[in-house]
Amino acid sequence: MSLDATRRHTFTAHDVTLRSTPADRWALKQLQRSVHGVPVRFVLWDGVASGPKTAPLATVHFKRRRALWSWLWDPQLYVGETYMAGAVDGDGDLRALLEAMYRVTKAPRGWSARRQSITLQLARSNVHHHYDLGNEFYRLWLDRELVYTCAYFPRRDVTLDEAQAAKMDLVCRKLRLQPGERVVEAGCGWGALALHMARHYGVTVDAFNLSSAQLAWARERAASEGLADRARFFDGDYRTVTGTYDVFVSVGMIEHVGLNQLGALAHVMDRVMTPNGRGLLHFIGRNRPAPLNRWIRKRIFPGGYPPTLRELCEHVLEPADFSVLDVENLRLHYALTLRHWRERFEQSADRVRTMFDEPFVRAWRLYLTGSEAAFTTGWMQLFQVVISRGTSNAVPWTRVSG
Amino acid sequence: MSLDATRRHTFTAHDVTLRSTPADRWALKQLQRSVHGVPVRFVLWDGVASGPKTAPLATVHFKRRRALWSWLWDPQLYVGETYMAGAVDGDGDLRALLEAMYRVTKAPRGWSARRQSITLQLARSNVHHHYDLGNEFYRLWLDRELVYTCAYFPRRDVTLDEAQAAKMDLVCRKLRLQPGERVVEAGCGWGALALHMARHYGVTVDAFNLSSAQLAWARERAASEGLADRARFFDGDYRTVTGTYDVFVSVGMIEHVGLNQLGALAHVMDRVMTPNGRGLLHFIGRNRPAPLNRWIRKRIFPGGYPPTLRELCEHVLEPADFSVLDVENLRLHYALTLRHWRERFEQSADRVRTMFDEPFVRAWRLYLTGSEAAFTTGWMQLFQVVISRGTSNAVPWTRVSG
Repeated sequence: MSLDATRRHTFTAHDVTLRSTPADRWALKQLQRSVHGVPVRFVLWDGVASGPKTAPLATVHFKRRRALWSWLWDPQLYVGETYMAGAVDGDGDLRALLEAMYRVTKAPRGWSARRQSITLQLARSNVHHHYDLGNEFYRLWLDRELVYTCAYFPRRDVTLDEAQAAKMDLVCRKLRLQPGERVVEAGCGWGALALHMARHYGVTVDAFNLSSAQLAWARERAASEGLADRARFFDGDYRTVTGTYDVFVSVGMIEHVGLNQLGALAHVMDRVMTPNGRGLLHFIGRNRPAPLNRWIRKRIFPGGYPPTLRELCEHVLEPADFSVLDVENLRLHYALTLRHWRERFEQSADRVRTMFDEPFVRAWRLYLTGSEAAFTTGWMQLFQVVISRGTSNAVPWTRVSG
Repeated sequence: MSLDATRRHTFTAHDVTLRSTPADRWALKQLQRSVHGVPVRFVLWDGVASGPKTAPLATVHFKRRRALWSWLWDPQLYVGETYMAGAVDGDGDLRALLEAMYRVTKAPRGWSARRQSITLQLARSNVHHHYDLGNEFYRLWLDRELVYTCAYFPRRDVTLDEAQAAKMDLVCRKLRLQPGERVVEAGCGWGALALHMARHYGVTVDAFNLSSAQLAWARERAASEGLADRARFFDGDYRTVTGTYDVFVSVGMIEHVGLNQLGALAHVMDRVMTPNGRGLLHFIGRNRPAPLNRWIRKRIFPGGYPPTLRELCEHVLEPADFSVLDVENLRLHYALTLRHWRERFEQSADRVRTMFDEPFVRAWRLYLTGSEAAFTTGWMQLFQVVISRGTSNAVPWTRVSG
């Protein structure tokens, strides 16, 4: 499959010999209409085509009749499904195409979230689906510290390794970590931030996670660096946190909590933070409420829901009387992070194919490219929110910048 | 009246000779109970007293029976009313007392705002009530530029003049003003920010206000500095803004808009901002929705309503698809600003008394001291919010700090 930003392939093989019918051509016309003028060319299995002949952003080839109709029937799900399965192929610039499609698509208004309740068991299954794909897979394309969240680029041209280190420092500086303080981290990935805090800021960190592959990795690293007593890794999610802490930090976890469980998160934060405690919540969010793309929920992030800042205030901060001290939106930094990941992923695509299969490679290409387009076009936001208790005056007098 | 933080007076005169009754003493007991252990001493007109004899934060003397009962009946209104009228007097530290009271008082939960509609006529009357008290009055205790909003203190010990200049620069830097850009300011006070922007950042500013006293002052200053063509002052509120602008700025205005009109504000911002426009909203807010104190609404700020960040998102930002780029909470900077104002006000109290009368001096002392206590204890917040359109990528890559 060739729909990617870095390489162009030409498409040849059609596996359907059936002639297209008048109904198929009607469907093609509807499809062309649905892209609101985005210069994309559609070609059916027998060569019947629609859209600009010269310089389209991309050409999409339908190899099967069902694929064509599925795009009309439920594009949110079947664009991804047919692409992944190879029933659709094409050439051109996938990223440019997805960006153009985001730009002409209206965000849903007045949408209400389906209130799925994510039990601890379901959370474990959701986490397992994505984060237990194997550390070797993620090592192929993440930075050297395995930080799988938005990086911070002080300048656009720093490396991904530098940008992830800068992000971790930015988080620590925003939290004004003091030696000896106790930090709890809800959702710790491979432990990079917890280890960074323990190593450079003299704090002790209790970090929680549900991914057994990540936990094993994090514990191994803590032991090998002699940090096992200052960066401890526990098998559990935010709900299992007990004790009290000076700092509550969560990077890239809230988007997995689900709208229905945000109140439970507030309860946990309220229970574990000291009276002068601080918190930092770093999460993928939205400007307006909208469901996560259905294909992404099915194939990539089951249970995922990126909340708006309003929803965070409504369900987490107001109920527990937390005060917003500082918000920074790093949307374009996430687009750049994703570009790094996508380019590194493509460089390792052959290796990934041998570890998994071709549909896996296609699914991850679509997910990484689509995410970059979503952050580039403003469909997704990345909020970093610093909070304290509403009554605490142990708050920074001035703020830090990157 | 002596209940202020900087001076202590002793109270002597009682103007009521009636003996207190068992009912009065019951009311006294209820009142003492209502302060939740705050060490305040209450003394009735005949010397009957309640509360700690040694080292109370303050002693409150009721000079009239009606004052005592009014405090039980409707403290939110009558603490201020009786104090203002001289029916209650006292000695001690008013600021410490108000802070202690804020600390033991629970914020209302689940409160819904009364949706008052503030028409343009009502807005004009509200503004006239407060801002047309005379420029000479405000010159007695504001900074030299007459900035009547939260200052920014890079260090706690800079002067008020320096802190107001630093605040104006912080606003301009957050907005990344470029020479030649067009700025609209909704609610411009005496024009300090508009003049600062035109003078130091090479932009042209159209500034709107409803206070005739402030407008006259601002126009006079613009003319005398030769800035009349680059800082223009118009008689009108946010609803009367037309044209298009690169930047929308509003400092200390949203708290006068009213919850019911926030949607109209969103509509105006959406109408006047260019596709790559930026905005900055600086306003007094809350962590949880609550009405402004009723006495403050009656005597100081008719129609005032400090919204929560959630309410700003819900009524202004989400409907118009604005993106939150940056939020900073300057609550403690406002407490320090108010301390400066209060101290300067007290230094000019005799002069204010000749300009107005004793109840005016008392009302403003209570307002300034109570506001300082509200910001110190976290009852009020000061949010500075930078926004762009949700689809614009003409946004700062990194943020500024003060």
